[in-house]
Formats: sequence, structure tokens, C-alpha cells
Amino acid sequence: MEELRGMPVVKHIAQEVTERMEKLAQKNVVPTLAVIRVGEREDDLSYERGLLKRFDSVGAKVVSKVLPLDVTEEELVDTLKACNNDNDIHGILLFRPLPKHLDEKKIIELVDPRKDVDCMCLTNVAHTFSQSGLGHEPCTPKAVMEMIDYYNIDLTGKKVVVVGRSMVVGKPMAMMMLKANATVTICHTKTANLKEECKKADIIVACAGVAKMLDGTYISEGTIVFDVGINVVDGKLCGDVDYESIGELASKATPVPGGVGTVTTSVLLKHTVWSAERA
Amino acid sequence: MEELRGMPVVKHIAQEVTERMEKLAQKNVVPTLAVIRVGEREDDLSYERGLLKRFDSVGAKVVSKVLPLDVTEEELVDTLKACNNDNDIHGILLFRPLPKHLDEKKIIELVDPRKDVDCMCLTNVAHTFSQSGLGHEPCTPKAVMEMIDYYNIDLTGKKVVVVGRSMVVGKPMAMMMLKANATVTICHTKTANLKEECKKADIIVACAGVAKMLDGTYISEGTIVFDVGINVVDGKLCGDVDYESIGELASKATPVPGGVGTVTTSVLLKHTVWSAERA
Repeated sequence: MEELRGMPVVKHIAQEVTERMEKLAQKNVVPTLAVIRVGEREDDLSYERGLLKRFDSVGAKVVSKVLPLDVTEEELVDTLKACNNDNDIHGILLFRPLPKHLDEKKIIELVDPRKDVDCMCLTNVAHTFSQSGLGHEPCTPKAVMEMIDYYNIDLTGKKVVVVGRSMVVGKPMAMMMLKANATVTICHTKTANLKEECKKADIIVACAGVAKMLDGTYISEGTIVFDVGINVVDGKLCGDVDYESIGELASKATPVPGGVGTVTTSVLLKHTVWSAERA
Repeated sequence: MEELRGMPVVKHIAQEVTERMEKLAQKNVVPTLAVIRVGEREDDLSYERGLLKRFDSVGAKVVSKVLPLDVTEEELVDTLKACNNDNDIHGILLFRPLPKHLDEKKIIELVDPRKDVDCMCLTNVAHTFSQSGLGHEPCTPKAVMEMIDYYNIDLTGKKVVVVGRSMVVGKPMAMMMLKANATVTICHTKTANLKEECKKADIIVACAGVAKMLDGTYISEGTIVFDVGINVVDGKLCGDVDYESIGELASKATPVPGGVGTVTTSVLLKHTVWSAERA
């Protein structure tokens, strides 16, 4: 089995982004992402450090706007609007979930859709559904597509089974696969015979959020497996796929860690550069 | 084979709508749809007559705003905005395609999403993708769901194959089926073995736009078939399914004409009533 690692894709994107940033530099533009964070949740801090490192490696910028846990809606909205109006900020990432006293649905719609690099607001959700190419799409399924491009996997007419139907991964993943001319089946907790569905797939995308749920008995010979799951079991990271048990059958698969998750911050970087180009 | 006809569903919706309209009448509200039509295309006129009849049968109103083919963008936008601002208008239907000198994409985004009963604008497209229940969804796939409700067809865990991936039918259909807990496969012109996919389905929705493309060889015993196609062959209406040839195998199927298409104007009526209730 060929291991599809994320790092070569990260390097490939860095190279592409560097070339595009040279053109922006001629106009004195440095792609900049504003991270709006309420509180000090460890997950958020860790993701933020990763972002900072990835952006820094190509000379792009991340500015953090940190607000206290008891921030008022008005203060948060003011911070957001200041980012919307600041020509030196090209992307906005708002960590969620927000504390309960804040109306998250209302607040995310206030982000300028052109700066909404993480596809939070309705405009970008709609562009993702129609695959118009006019909006920012969710980073995780987009990371899978970057890997597919990089590793030269042809999707036309292929049977893709997406296990999971969330708005963050499963459904947008299905739309991207469809746009690439795959025949797409979307499975979920209510699917009658998941094993049978998966065994018919040329390509499986596991995004159910259940640790090691797909093992070798779900895989046919030659299947390509993208594991989007990020779970912690006994203090160790693992995916939705039982990686050891698929090795004899799958032709290619992404590990966890080191696979799809590694690429997502590069997608966020690419989106920020695109926003800077369109500004 | 049981024929799933549209007319009983139309009557059922009329009854539900009548009850809801009685409550609105107490507040002196009559659900009203504005039809904005540029030119006198025969298709549009025929659809408009159908709408008028359906709305009239329950005492709801249709007002036609007819503009000349050489209307300026400004005049059309003014008409649209007048409808947005008119509290006696609850739904807006804009016939498309618009003449080429008008920027259709820009214009449809000016419709108030709450009055956009035909799901043209990005806000409603996003709500359709997420199945939030907060927006208007496209009428044709919604008509299929109304038939499924009326004829008591359980979708949980069922294998649904949607043949077609348009933004008007195929993709929203898939999202609605998924919300109802079906396992959904979306097929299209690039699908490698359409016949095999269809033969595995418990339910097929044909929305490819190709006359009689699915015949008996695509159907397994007991399959339920929804035919969304409206094609004209030798001057006669027919669907995407070769209705005669599936009779021995399919357990239930919608005829064309007299099936799904019959229900779509009732969905538009229901959307207009909902808009009036929310106004």
C-alpha cells in the first residue's frame, strides 16, 4: 500500500503560493489572516500555533485578535467589522463554537464573504453547493482535493463513497467529488449496509468522526482511502480508519496523523492568498 | 405497478393550505405571488396560467408584472424592489432565462430571500444545502418529497439513486433524501455503469433531462421510480423514464404528465403561504 502523506502536498502548495506572493509583493501586499479568538481554549491555541508556523514559512501573516470569554456581542461585532474594513487583512478566521451568550449564526453572517476563508457564511456555503468557483470552500474537503490533484488520482467515473454527511466535510466533499465527475454515494449512521457500500467503492472518504470505524472488512482490493477523522484514543491520535488492518487491500491511503489534516492549514493559506489577489 | 399520481397530492396540499389561509384571513392577509415576466415566451405564459389556476382554486393571488423584451436593467430592478417593499406581496417569481443584456446573476440576488419562493438566491441555496428548514427550497425536488410524504414512503436506510446533478433538481434532491436518512448515490453523464447503479436502488429519481432514457433494463423488482423529466417527443410529453417498459418490475412510479410536475405549482403555493405567515 502506498502511503499518501500530507507533507509533500504542503510543500507543493507552499511553492505555488510563494510564486503568487511574489506578484503581490510587487504591489506591497502581504497576505494576512486575522484570527479572532474568544478565550484561551487549548484546541484553538494549538491550531493557531500551527497556522502561524505555516503562514510564517512562506512570509504570509497571521494577526491574532483575542477577546475575553465574557466579551459582549457588540465588542465582538466591532472587532469583526474592523477586520472587514481593514484593507491589510485579507482573511478572517473566527474560532467556534462561541460562548453561549453570543449569537453565532448572526455573527458569522457579518463576515465579509470575500474574507471568509473558512466558509462560514451562507454565501460561501451556497458557492460550495453549486461549485461555482466563486467562493471559499471548507478547508478539510478542499485538502482532500489538493491531495487528489497532487497524487494524480483520476476521479472521472470513479465510485466514491463518502462516509459522513456533515456540512463541514461530508456534504461539501460530495459536491467536490461530483464536480470532478465521480459517481458519489453519501453514507451515514442510518445507512443499512455500510460495509457493502464501502466494498463497492473505488475511493472512500472517511469523515464519520468515529475512531477506527472502518477496518479491513470494509475495503476491497485496490481501494484508495482518505481518512479525515481526527480522534484521540488512549491519548493517541487516530483516524476513522483502522490503518493497520487495511494495508493488505487498499492501494493507497492517508495516515493519521500526517495525512489530510496536515494539508488543511495550507488550504487556509491558499484561500488567504486568493483573497489578497482579489482585494 | 401502482401509479403515483400528482393530483391527490395537489388536493392534499390545497386542504392544508386552506386551513393555514383561514388564520391569515383573520389578519386580512391574502397570500400573493408576484410573477415578473420579461417578454411573452409561450412556456412562461403556459406556466403562468397553471399558477393562476392553482392559486385561484384556494383563493390565493397571483399578480403579473410584465416587462418588454428590451426592458433596461434599471427598470427590472425597480420592479423587483417595488415587490420587495410591498407588504401585500409575499412571494416573487422571476421567469428565467432573462434576455442577455440583463445581468441575471446580479439581479436574482436583489430578491428579498424571504420572498424568493423559487430558491433563486444564494441565501436559499445555502439553506437548501444545509437543509436548515430556514429557507425556500427548489420546487421540483420539494414536489417529490411531498409525494413521498403523501404516499407514505419510508426513506430511512433506503438506497436512493438520483440520476442528474443539476442545481435545480439533482443536487437539492440528494440533500433532501439525505435529510430523510436515505443513503444517496448521485449519478450523471460520466457515471461508468449507470444501469448497474440503478439496478441496486430501492428508489430512483430520474432528472437527467433525456427522454425515456431509463427503461426496464435499469429497474429491479420492487423499485419505486420518480420521474422528474419533462420532454417533448413527436409533439407528446414524456419523462426521462420509459414508463411502459418498467411496469412489470417497478412497484410504484410517477407518470408523465400527471406525476411530479403536477405538484410543483402547489409547492410554490405552499411557499407563498409560508412567506405570508412569516411576514
